[in-house]
Amino acid sequence: MLTYSFEDIGNDTLYEHLYKAVKNDILNGTLTPMQKLPSKRSFAKNLSISTITVENAYSQLLAEGYIFSVPKKGYYVSDFSNPLLPDINIKSDFHNTDMKQNHPNTDTGQNTSNTDTTQNIFNTDVRQNVLNTDIRQNIFNIDTMSTSVNTHNMPEAFTSINLTVNHINADNFPFSIWSKLIREVISTEKSSLMKPLPSAGSYELRSAIAKHLRDYRGLKVSPEQIIIGAGTEYLYSIIIQLMGRKLVYGLEDPGYKKISKIYNSHKVACTYIPITASGINMDILRKSSADIMHISPSHHFPTGIVTSIRTRYKLLEWANENKTRYIIEDDYDTEFRLVGKPIPALLGIDRNEKVIYMNSFSKSLSSTIRISYMVLPAQLMKKYNETLSFYSCTVSSFEQATLAKFISDGYFEKHINRMRNYYRKLRDTLLNAIRKSPLNSNCTILEENSGLHFLLKINTDKTDTQLKADARSNGLIISCMSDYYMHHPINNNEHIIIINYSGIDAGSINSIIEKLCRII
Amino acid sequence: MLTYSFEDIGNDTLYEHLYKAVKNDILNGTLTPMQKLPSKRSFAKNLSISTITVENAYSQLLAEGYIFSVPKKGYYVSDFSNPLLPDINIKSDFHNTDMKQNHPNTDTGQNTSNTDTTQNIFNTDVRQNVLNTDIRQNIFNIDTMSTSVNTHNMPEAFTSINLTVNHINADNFPFSIWSKLIREVISTEKSSLMKPLPSAGSYELRSAIAKHLRDYRGLKVSPEQIIIGAGTEYLYSIIIQLMGRKLVYGLEDPGYKKISKIYNSHKVACTYIPITASGINMDILRKSSADIMHISPSHHFPTGIVTSIRTRYKLLEWANENKTRYIIEDDYDTEFRLVGKPIPALLGIDRNEKVIYMNSFSKSLSSTIRISYMVLPAQLMKKYNETLSFYSCTVSSFEQATLAKFISDGYFEKHINRMRNYYRKLRDTLLNAIRKSPLNSNCTILEENSGLHFLLKINTDKTDTQLKADARSNGLIISCMSDYYMHHPINNNEHIIIINYSGIDAGSINSIIEKLCRII
Repeated sequence: MLTYSFEDIGNDTLYEHLYKAVKNDILNGTLTPMQKLPSKRSFAKNLSISTITVENAYSQLLAEGYIFSVPKKGYYVSDFSNPLLPDINIKSDFHNTDMKQNHPNTDTGQNTSNTDTTQNIFNTDVRQNVLNTDIRQNIFNIDTMSTSVNTHNMPEAFTSINLTVNHINADNFPFSIWSKLIREVISTEKSSLMKPLPSAGSYELRSAIAKHLRDYRGLKVSPEQIIIGAGTEYLYSIIIQLMGRKLVYGLEDPGYKKISKIYNSHKVACTYIPITASGINMDILRKSSADIMHISPSHHFPTGIVTSIRTRYKLLEWANENKTRYIIEDDYDTEFRLVGKPIPALLGIDRNEKVIYMNSFSKSLSSTIRISYMVLPAQLMKKYNETLSFYSCTVSSFEQATLAKFISDGYFEKHINRMRNYYRKLRDTLLNAIRKSPLNSNCTILEENSGLHFLLKINTDKTDTQLKADARSNGLIISCMSDYYMHHPINNNEHIIIINYSGIDAGSINSIIEKLCRII
Repeated sequence: MLTYSFEDIGNDTLYEHLYKAVKNDILNGTLTPMQKLPSKRSFAKNLSISTITVENAYSQLLAEGYIFSVPKKGYYVSDFSNPLLPDINIKSDFHNTDMKQNHPNTDTGQNTSNTDTTQNIFNTDVRQNVLNTDIRQNIFNIDTMSTSVNTHNMPEAFTSINLTVNHINADNFPFSIWSKLIREVISTEKSSLMKPLPSAGSYELRSAIAKHLRDYRGLKVSPEQIIIGAGTEYLYSIIIQLMGRKLVYGLEDPGYKKISKIYNSHKVACTYIPITASGINMDILRKSSADIMHISPSHHFPTGIVTSIRTRYKLLEWANENKTRYIIEDDYDTEFRLVGKPIPALLGIDRNEKVIYMNSFSKSLSSTIRISYMVLPAQLMKKYNETLSFYSCTVSSFEQATLAKFISDGYFEKHINRMRNYYRKLRDTLLNAIRKSPLNSNCTILEENSGLHFLLKINTDKTDTQLKADARSNGLIISCMSDYYMHHPINNNEHIIIINYSGIDAGSINSIIEKLCRII
């Protein structure tokens, strides 16, 4: 039986310590691929810790793909050391058919995840080609249809509840602190506020971000590698100018459609790589013409899938094979993994400067303060400085100085912790309400542990189009997984609704569930 | 003799009323092309007004190109009604050889402008082709050389005075009002600050800008035509995506190099159209492949030239001839014409929706608050809404709300008036100091009436390269007109220094002049 000492655990919790110890033994080969791990109960007994602690450590290892589970058999070490072997990764916590609550403080019992279901939910057919204009046009129309209702102009009584976007509730923004910091900045930094900033942004803000990435993401990044911009959308246009227009950009399918729209609008070639249960389909990526692969390995939108450690190494290997290849890691809502530790960034295991890391303050602070950033590998930063630093930084010096102070003074960390608790509570209330409702017998909750959305797979005879239309006539704006596929034909009968819950009021939960029941 | 009534002058000053009356008679044909106007003295006597009033009205008509002056002969009506006639426009106030002060409150005496000098100063050779990469590379290097010194990192005692950029002095930004307005916005608009803004920007800010354009530029623009963006640099990328990558963008030569860099960085084809004394060279534009002509008709950088009314009509006629043709009017520092009225915008006489108007708050407020805007013709705005409104607005909702209040509450108007007086005083102090110095006998001051820079033509045997190097070793960073030409061969012996004076301290004027004397 595996044995670990719990003496020098430092600031780690018990489960973090166990997670790191097992992960380390997998990485150094002490634990070998396909090796069976002890059952949770016997491991807990042997280490004199609670089953919940083992459960949480295993959950984290599962989420990151270091281990996999076989229903009714147990847990096994994944084989990610040789990425050329066939992918035997089974993404266990993707699918909880019994809708158990997977909170770290709750023993979740037997894991009933099922590979077949996962395969059915995500169509992994080879669907890859550069989109022609007609198809692009169709995609635009579909998306416009599903999100174009402007609820702001409707009388309040008739305002629909919109589950297609993640707003930040005004009650949750730290207005008084923000206001105080702006006043401080204006009264003490007048002269520097008027000086044009470096093209890449304020050094203070870049330093604060570098420190934040080191402290909370374990990433060793220097301020000189960071570029601040008015939104990731803007930064994509910088990437296109930096990397060149002749490269082919690989995008996730399904995926966040705006990214595809931006690349298409800049008229650069895109190719779409399907998502599997462990991340993007590497075989299809290898057969594709993609040079730059754009992914969200910590939390894919909309499927919620976490890229397994095996696929991560495969991705890095793929990128290393050609000097034009790079990976864009979009870490858009990493702060809000609601179970266990945040998933480590791909950038953290990149030894060859192949990862462009992007993040923003849209989810963690507000999407209406337009501040995003990217971390460039040294050679790309050099190229930026030589060819693109004539651009003025797009973010106001007032807000850069305020945000730098907000991070450095510790407010950002507190805010994120507060928001993570708030979202966890909101999600739990919503999930509990679903479980107690008639909806329970007609739906399956998926991917509820990570970020600000989860999935609801509905048993219904209606098409997705009908579902959305019926929802709208009931004052509920929803989107379905089928809206996020880039390729035709789209399966209109997946019945997976994406629940973006961050902006909803706890008070409207019953009304949402009532409307959902009425629809199905 | 011409006679006008001064009874119904409304809120206009006497000279504005006279300017409008004469302009109207030129436009309606009462005054015909080549018709001689009364001398200032006799016209004043006849109308029972002061000579200065007539002088100011004539100056404005001259600046806008409605009339022209022939030295020692008098003033004549321009022929702009038929743009196909040869250009007989003589741009009178471009060149004041006697360095007289042209302040509206001063009778400037005889106008000694001279067409030949103007022709010599700006090389109007046909120099037009799409730049190849090598030439582009050279231009980049030249420009980097001339502006890349980072004065911020030097010890204060060794900090050079930089005349190549227009900073805003921290003393001149309305910090206390801005701080007060942000506080108000944060305390009263919490919920709307958290709501995602329309892609084109906050309706309140767009309305405030539309009203400002109506009140101070006489432009009839609806808020729905306005797009807010984080800097004009960003808006150019939107224009490229909107207009298409197959079009050829015509740029002014010489011109503001950043615009050229942006188009080149987006890999769209550019062609360079030379500047003449009355605006861009229309003959060369007509022979060029340009579809979109990018100009600053109110105040060209760096020559300071105002596009004559004749050339404006020719430009509009050119644009009307082909549906792919448009004019981008960059009105970047129109607020700071220091003599007479602001030059009317080209947009104001555009009857066929061919002008894209751009402006920013970089000069009028601060370049470090990144807020710019453009006014699109209706059909382009429709296209934007259909194809590009998926983009999030790049400017923070906090700063949009603050700026909207700043404009609506009248602070912006007050600020601009205050800054115009400040700049006029600063310029006068600088010009007087030059006149009293030994520099006076070795230089000619050009284009000092408009915007935040003027030109100093130096008598010297040194090349421009030597001039800049000698300036630098004396702690003065300068740029020359020759830095702004897009085409080789560049005349390295023009000796025209561009004096961007907005950011200098009045206290450093003597030091600047001392250094300039030492150089030549």
